[in-house]
Amino acid sequence: MLLDHIHQPEDLKHLTTEQLEQLAAEIREFLVEKLSVTGGHLAPNLGVVELTIALHYLFDSPDDKFIFDVGHQSYVHKILTGRKDRFDTLRMYKGLCGFVKRSESEHDVWEAGHSSTSLSAAMGMAVARDLKKASNRVVAVIGDGALTGGMALEALNHIGHEKRNLMVILNDNEMSIAPNVGALHNYLGRIRSDRHYVKAKEEVEYLLKKIPAIGGTLAKTAEKLKDSFKYLVVPGVWFEELGFTYLGPVDGHNLPLLLETLKQADKVIGPVLVHVITLKGKGYSPAEADSQNWHGASPYKIESGKMIKAVGPPMYTEVFGNTLIELARQDERVVAITPAMPSGSGLIKFASIFPERMFDVGIAEQHAATFSAGLASEGLKPVFAVYSTFLQRAYDQVVHDICRANLNVAFAIDRAGFVGPDGETHQGIYDIAYLRSIPNLTLMMPKDENELRHMMKTAVDYNDGPIAVRYPRISGLGVSMDEPLKSIPIGTWEVLRPGEDAAILAVGPMIPVALEAAELMAKEGVGVRVVNARFIKPMDEAMLLQLAKEDLPMITLEEGAQMGGFGSGVMEFYSSQNLHGMRVKIIGVPDYFVEHGSVAEQRQEVGFTSERLVAELQALVPRKRQRA
Amino acid sequence: MLLDHIHQPEDLKHLTTEQLEQLAAEIREFLVEKLSVTGGHLAPNLGVVELTIALHYLFDSPDDKFIFDVGHQSYVHKILTGRKDRFDTLRMYKGLCGFVKRSESEHDVWEAGHSSTSLSAAMGMAVARDLKKASNRVVAVIGDGALTGGMALEALNHIGHEKRNLMVILNDNEMSIAPNVGALHNYLGRIRSDRHYVKAKEEVEYLLKKIPAIGGTLAKTAEKLKDSFKYLVVPGVWFEELGFTYLGPVDGHNLPLLLETLKQADKVIGPVLVHVITLKGKGYSPAEADSQNWHGASPYKIESGKMIKAVGPPMYTEVFGNTLIELARQDERVVAITPAMPSGSGLIKFASIFPERMFDVGIAEQHAATFSAGLASEGLKPVFAVYSTFLQRAYDQVVHDICRANLNVAFAIDRAGFVGPDGETHQGIYDIAYLRSIPNLTLMMPKDENELRHMMKTAVDYNDGPIAVRYPRISGLGVSMDEPLKSIPIGTWEVLRPGEDAAILAVGPMIPVALEAAELMAKEGVGVRVVNARFIKPMDEAMLLQLAKEDLPMITLEEGAQMGGFGSGVMEFYSSQNLHGMRVKIIGVPDYFVEHGSVAEQRQEVGFTSERLVAELQALVPRKRQRA
Repeated sequence: MLLDHIHQPEDLKHLTTEQLEQLAAEIREFLVEKLSVTGGHLAPNLGVVELTIALHYLFDSPDDKFIFDVGHQSYVHKILTGRKDRFDTLRMYKGLCGFVKRSESEHDVWEAGHSSTSLSAAMGMAVARDLKKASNRVVAVIGDGALTGGMALEALNHIGHEKRNLMVILNDNEMSIAPNVGALHNYLGRIRSDRHYVKAKEEVEYLLKKIPAIGGTLAKTAEKLKDSFKYLVVPGVWFEELGFTYLGPVDGHNLPLLLETLKQADKVIGPVLVHVITLKGKGYSPAEADSQNWHGASPYKIESGKMIKAVGPPMYTEVFGNTLIELARQDERVVAITPAMPSGSGLIKFASIFPERMFDVGIAEQHAATFSAGLASEGLKPVFAVYSTFLQRAYDQVVHDICRANLNVAFAIDRAGFVGPDGETHQGIYDIAYLRSIPNLTLMMPKDENELRHMMKTAVDYNDGPIAVRYPRISGLGVSMDEPLKSIPIGTWEVLRPGEDAAILAVGPMIPVALEAAELMAKEGVGVRVVNARFIKPMDEAMLLQLAKEDLPMITLEEGAQMGGFGSGVMEFYSSQNLHGMRVKIIGVPDYFVEHGSVAEQRQEVGFTSERLVAELQALVPRKRQRA
Repeated sequence: MLLDHIHQPEDLKHLTTEQLEQLAAEIREFLVEKLSVTGGHLAPNLGVVELTIALHYLFDSPDDKFIFDVGHQSYVHKILTGRKDRFDTLRMYKGLCGFVKRSESEHDVWEAGHSSTSLSAAMGMAVARDLKKASNRVVAVIGDGALTGGMALEALNHIGHEKRNLMVILNDNEMSIAPNVGALHNYLGRIRSDRHYVKAKEEVEYLLKKIPAIGGTLAKTAEKLKDSFKYLVVPGVWFEELGFTYLGPVDGHNLPLLLETLKQADKVIGPVLVHVITLKGKGYSPAEADSQNWHGASPYKIESGKMIKAVGPPMYTEVFGNTLIELARQDERVVAITPAMPSGSGLIKFASIFPERMFDVGIAEQHAATFSAGLASEGLKPVFAVYSTFLQRAYDQVVHDICRANLNVAFAIDRAGFVGPDGETHQGIYDIAYLRSIPNLTLMMPKDENELRHMMKTAVDYNDGPIAVRYPRISGLGVSMDEPLKSIPIGTWEVLRPGEDAAILAVGPMIPVALEAAELMAKEGVGVRVVNARFIKPMDEAMLLQLAKEDLPMITLEEGAQMGGFGSGVMEFYSSQNLHGMRVKIIGVPDYFVEHGSVAEQRQEVGFTSERLVAELQALVPRKRQRA
């Protein structure tokens, strides 16, 4: 095996092209085997094997800076930079990160989990290089899906203007996670498939050669046109107009051609864009055939290509998708919006039933939010389905375009709380803090998958402004489903378990932990009331006042940042009522970024356990009440 | 005066083109006169007089939807829709809003103060129209500066793909607030100035007519090329590639031509972009000569074009700019980044002294933030100067690209707190809440303009992660300036006035109010300690513990959202320490959007007054301590 002898990029340099091709095959085999056990982003990485080899063969990391957009397609890069032996721990607690990670290697110069950041980062590194009068290369690798994110387009505009040396490799695999959408995608498709782009250049040259023979004014006209023809009839005119030299399209699995093109690109002065066509899942036929499903793969059987899926109650995501179909049948104002996550957000079935009412806008969270605002302003009921971590991209649009104008946009915030193996870049733990301070917004979280359904109904029926439901990236509790769907009165909580000595106000998936702790305390003779704080905003003020009247010590418990979250809201309320003696212990995610692992491990790490709750309750409740 | 007879768009319909031109002249005169007293966005509105008249003359608002990007260029629209008589109250408390405002008129269908939202909103309205099977027009008016905002580019991508009927008017005045930057701007410049674009189309048509006579294979080639020629050799190829029909460029002050072009555009099926060239400040020579300065004008003398500027201590903005020059001289790592606000952020002088170290990236807050992250990752010290309200656009980049990676980016957050006449779209009152919950970030606010200088020094010297200084859009207190600049120990507060009965923990410009209240309480015999809580995060925990030890009741006072702000942080700290009996009264901006007016009026409205503080203190401090 050649792969056994590759411990650093240097080890590639003496290989022949044939050996590099053999290495590519070995890496594919390695990935297919390792990921069959751990799961992970198989298809994207199979697509960039040759490209990553070519970069490390031709250029000199870490002096030359390689910036992988999103970073989940960095597995090959990790293999080539000495981390091959850690793939058994991929995406596991304390194991190898599924994204680029600066703390893992000096070759990881930029880390990301959100898309479309690479061009801005690359521009920063190019400017820093120039100011330091250094001469290293800066190479950004960005997918065609990520390219339509607003930030990437802002960066193109800046890079094209400044004309510094910077290489952008457009990894065009015709889809990011879902099939791509958008005009720019169509444009790339024309470059790829429509031969008129490629032929036009040759034909114009032929035509121009003939024209002088025509003579007279026509020749003169033709002469004048030469420049503009030459300039306009190239496939990448859209990029050239923005100041880039465009090279491509080139087959990203043809290593000799790829090496040649990158060598050419390296000679270009100023920004250059290399358009590389790759196939997601390349070399593993199940992934080639269904690259969307194999984007992020569960463990699988290599021979059959069958993924091993957990059995159990449905995921919240799935319940959301099914409920939205039901609601759309009842209310024709309902439309669904997703920024490139139709599958991840559980909207595939909705899209097939209501194709006219489904809008996948591509990786474009900002546009998705304000597009929703536009829909709402004309009386529709947009349901913007988005992951908590990606809604961060639309924070200003939520404040300025939706909440300030008090428009009836419903948010379905998936992946709220810990997300497990995607880790720190994807944790959905800030949304409570960043949404709660915005006026006009109602924010809910259900105790189980059945309550999610009624909350969706509540959201769709609510016509007094923006309203959001957040729910976790886990399976439901397996509870039975109530019919019919009904609205929950805004701002009401429910007592799930009585108790006269203390209370736990728990949000969403923290409720089972709270109930467990209450059970343990009951054995000690301490009665702990457990409240389903299903409205994070507005809160149930009547219940809060009642708790104050009883002077119950309480714990607030939420899977969200401890600073500025639900617990702070409880304390703010008491402060506003001049109720100053209340004993409120806030438990949330402490003030650091929690890394990858399973959701259970992440919860354990930050202390979302019944043992912790018991200890806190014992500290809170006066000894005399602890009758045991 | 024709203007006297225009009360609604209907009143325009019977006018002749000559009369419309006369009306344009009258509107200009009206604007120049009215704004000389109130101030306001003069130059942008003078630029769109003919355009706005043309829209209301040809189309039918409010059935047809006019969406003005940013919305500060909607004065002419306001005049034509019955709000002429309210211009004496422009941007004043309870007066006419300086932006589009839905509550003012049915003709205001979309309101905004931030840029680049119009295309997304228009797309939402176009989709809603189609789903409702209506047939109204949707027309977005967007400036060339706003077009480079990421969200606008995301929207172009979606609009071009969906092919619905939608008109985009690109109001190209060659600058937004500052002279525009970016590759797209350069491209528009080529369209405007380079005649080959305009002539090429005619010439190709001529050429194609001649070619069939040539015969043979050449004719065949030419035939095949016809489509691509026609398609490529138009000035707006960049937009055409995205799926738009491009019309223009057209002189936006030539009313007959403008009317004709808009009529043509109205016939286009699918999305159409009309490129209109306008002159900011058109018709008032001082504004034409210096449109940047006249973008948002103070009151002025009409004859001389001299603005009436307030005299007094320097604005915080100015102190920031001067300090940054000093710091850049001391530390060559310092570079400055602004998203299209070099003047508003006080960086004009810096740019002239350090042109190589100044980066105006255009309206592109997301890119600006991640570009800063890229610079920091290579050892530079980027100072990202941005208004609080616009930093909202880069929230995800702050979380994911800067704080998560713990990069040494310094933020200079201007316009923090109330901003006065720009009103609710521009209030800088959410940044404390949305920044405080992000790990790794240090957040400061100075008590006066001198402390701002030392905080800038602190920020530049700090090498343990991101650090931010927020400061208000007001003049300083006129204090003297200390030399030399020195770093303030991170997380330390200072006691400004002793007191043993109660404490006020005040942030930034709230300190003078706190001191005033303490003075009033002293007359009642109550000693109120006043603390300059200059670090919002991390807080001075030693001082908080000391206050707890003394069991002092306290007020927290901040010009920021009351929910999730500094005051909540104080309560969270006590909760984390199991110090549950503390009497903490949180005072911040209540949970609604505060409208335009002066900063003093806005403060008065929400109760940032010494009288309020005295009342709260009287309620907090036990009667026995109130010795008076």
